[in-house]
Amino acid sequence: MSQFETDATNRVFNFAAGPAAIPLPVLRRAAGEMSDWGGTGMGVMEMSHRSKEFIGIAEAAEARLRSLMNIGDNYKVLFLQGGATGQFVGVAANLSTVTAVADYVITGHFGQRAYAEACKYLYRINVAARSDPHTYVPPQDEWQLSGDAGYVHITLNETVNGVVFETVPETGDIPLVADVSSIILSEPIDVTKFGALYAGAQKNIGPSGLAVVIVREDLLARTRPRTPAVWDWFAMAQSGSMLNTPPTYSWYIAGLVFEWLETEGGVEAIAKINQRKADKLYAAIDGSGLYSNPVALPNRSRMNVVFSLAQPELEKAFLAEAKENGMVNLSGHRAVGGVRASIYNAMPEAGVDALVEFMKEFENKHG
Amino acid sequence: MSQFETDATNRVFNFAAGPAAIPLPVLRRAAGEMSDWGGTGMGVMEMSHRSKEFIGIAEAAEARLRSLMNIGDNYKVLFLQGGATGQFVGVAANLSTVTAVADYVITGHFGQRAYAEACKYLYRINVAARSDPHTYVPPQDEWQLSGDAGYVHITLNETVNGVVFETVPETGDIPLVADVSSIILSEPIDVTKFGALYAGAQKNIGPSGLAVVIVREDLLARTRPRTPAVWDWFAMAQSGSMLNTPPTYSWYIAGLVFEWLETEGGVEAIAKINQRKADKLYAAIDGSGLYSNPVALPNRSRMNVVFSLAQPELEKAFLAEAKENGMVNLSGHRAVGGVRASIYNAMPEAGVDALVEFMKEFENKHG
Repeated sequence: MSQFETDATNRVFNFAAGPAAIPLPVLRRAAGEMSDWGGTGMGVMEMSHRSKEFIGIAEAAEARLRSLMNIGDNYKVLFLQGGATGQFVGVAANLSTVTAVADYVITGHFGQRAYAEACKYLYRINVAARSDPHTYVPPQDEWQLSGDAGYVHITLNETVNGVVFETVPETGDIPLVADVSSIILSEPIDVTKFGALYAGAQKNIGPSGLAVVIVREDLLARTRPRTPAVWDWFAMAQSGSMLNTPPTYSWYIAGLVFEWLETEGGVEAIAKINQRKADKLYAAIDGSGLYSNPVALPNRSRMNVVFSLAQPELEKAFLAEAKENGMVNLSGHRAVGGVRASIYNAMPEAGVDALVEFMKEFENKHG
Repeated sequence: MSQFETDATNRVFNFAAGPAAIPLPVLRRAAGEMSDWGGTGMGVMEMSHRSKEFIGIAEAAEARLRSLMNIGDNYKVLFLQGGATGQFVGVAANLSTVTAVADYVITGHFGQRAYAEACKYLYRINVAARSDPHTYVPPQDEWQLSGDAGYVHITLNETVNGVVFETVPETGDIPLVADVSSIILSEPIDVTKFGALYAGAQKNIGPSGLAVVIVREDLLARTRPRTPAVWDWFAMAQSGSMLNTPPTYSWYIAGLVFEWLETEGGVEAIAKINQRKADKLYAAIDGSGLYSNPVALPNRSRMNVVFSLAQPELEKAFLAEAKENGMVNLSGHRAVGGVRASIYNAMPEAGVDALVEFMKEFENKHG
C-alpha cells in the first residue's frame, strides 16, 4: 500500500511484552504526517478532539476494527484512556448487577490483578477457578460459578505466564468478560461469545495509554451509580468516547495499525503467520535439552512464549548475547523471571527465525 | 538548539483549547526519532516502560519539569494516564481526610465538573464560593469554608470561560489544590502555596491522555482505602508512576516540550511573551465596537481569550474567514459559544498579531 513507506532501516527485533514493536510502515507514516496531516497544516496530536478531521480519523479507526474483528452492530466499541488496569475497575463498575457479584477465573498474573482491583468495587467476588501454578487453564467442568454473578471474567491470554484458553468457555446467560490485551487481532475471536472484551493497546494495537472496550449494547444499562465519568461505559458510548478528551494521538496510531493489518490480509491471514511463528519457537524449545516451557500443551500462548534454561545461571548470558545479535527485551516478567519472547503481529517471522537460530547456537556453545 | 529542527512549513495558526498546538521543533524532533531513538533500533512508542532507555527518558522529563517550575524535593511529580477529568476523582480519593469533606470554589465550567465528579466520591462537599455568571473570581473574604475540609479546590485558569485567579488564595492549614491544566508552564506558579496541582497535558505539555500531578509528599498518606490502583497517588509515587504501564509516548513528548521550553528561556521568559500576546488581543477587543470580553479585568485569562461579537449572526462568517486566513479552531466551547483564542506557549506572537490584524479587517468589512 503506497501510503505506507517501508524503507529498510537499522531496526532491532523487539520482543517486548508491551509497550511492544509497532509495524515499521506505521511509524514511517506517522512520522511523515507528524506536523501536517492531510494538508490541514497541523498534526493529529494538535487536533481538537471535536474537530471534523479528528472525528473522521476516530470513526475510520473504529470502522476498521469492527471490520477486522467482525464486530456486530449490537456491540459498542469504546476508545478510552489508560489501559487494562483501569478497565479492571471499569468492568466491575459497569457489568456487576445490583447485587454486585462477579465470578473470576484466574489463570495468571493479570487475572489475579483484575480480581484484586475488582475486589475494591464489588460486594462479593467469587474465584470460580484458579490455576496453581499458572501453567494451565482449569477445565470448565471444575469451575464453581456462583450462579448469581453479573459476569464471569477470564484473561483469554496471560501475557506474563504465556497461557491461553484453548476454547472460549460457555457461560450461558451470565455474560463472559475477557481481558484480551495480548491476543486481540492476533487470531479470530468470536465476539458473539462475549458480553464484553477489553484490551490495553500497547501490544497489538498501538501506544500505551489507550484501552479498547467492546461491549454488548444490552449490558450498558448496568453502570453503577457513582461510577467516575471516565469509566462510565454507558456515558462514553453515548458520547462517542468523548465525554472528556480521549487519548487522540494513540487513537490515530491505532487506526494506522488497523489499516496496516488490513494490508497484511487481516486477522485470519496474520493468525496463520502467528501460528507458524509460535510453532517454530515451541519446536525449538521442545527439541532442545537447554530450554523448557512449563505450560500445558493446549494452553501454550501463541503471543507470549515463556521458557527457562536448564542452567538458570546462563540466563544473563543468553539475554546479553541475544541483545548483541539485535534481539532485545527477552527478559521474563519480573514476577516470574526466565525468558519471554512476545511475538505479536508486528514481529516479523524473520525475527522468530533469527531467535530460533540464536537459541541453537547458544545451546551448542553453552549447553 | 541543534537537536530541534525548525524548517519553515505549511502550518496554520491553531488556536484550539486542547488538544492544542505543539511547538513545531518538538514535532520535527519526534518525527525524526519515530522509528529509531538514540540508535536503539526502536522508537520510544515501542520501548518497554521498564527499559533503561525509557526510564532515562521519563526521569529526564521529570527533572526538566521540576527545574522549569522550581518544584521542591518535598513534592512528588507523577505522570499518569488520562487527563484532568480522571484526576477530579483522584483529588477526592487521595486528599480527602477520613471524614471525606472538601471545599470547592467554582469559577467556571471545569470547576463545576471537578465538583460533580468529586460528589461521587466524597461524603460531604461544600461549595465555598461560586461565580455567577462565570466572569470573575469571588473575593476570598466572601468564601464560606467548611473548616474541616481535607482540601480547598480551585481551577486556577478556567479554559472555557477565560477566567484566571488574580492571586493564589491563602487557605492556611487546609491544603489548596488546583487544576492548572490551561495555565501550567505559561507563567511562574509558586508551587509552595499548593498542597497539590494537577493538569491534563493537552494544552501546554503535550498530547492528550497524560495527566501530571504535583503533590506535597506529606499529603500522600491520605489515600482512601479501595481507591483504584491507577488513581492511587501514594502507590504511584512509590512506583515512579509505573504501577501499571504509563502513557509512555505522551510522557516522552512532554519531555521534548519541556526541553523546548528550556531553549526558549524557561517559564519566566515565555510568561513575558504570553503577557504581551494577551495584552495585544485584549487591546484589540477593548478598542473595537464589534468585539467584547465579559470577564472582570483582573481575572482575564492570559491563555484563553474569549469574546463575542455585537452582532452574533456574524460569528459564523468570522470563524470561516479566519480559517480561510490560516487561523483555525477559534470557536468558543460548545457550552458557552462565541469565539475563543487559546494562546498557549506554542502559539507564536506572530499568530496573535495575525489574529489582531484579521479582527480589525473583519470589523472594517462587517462591523
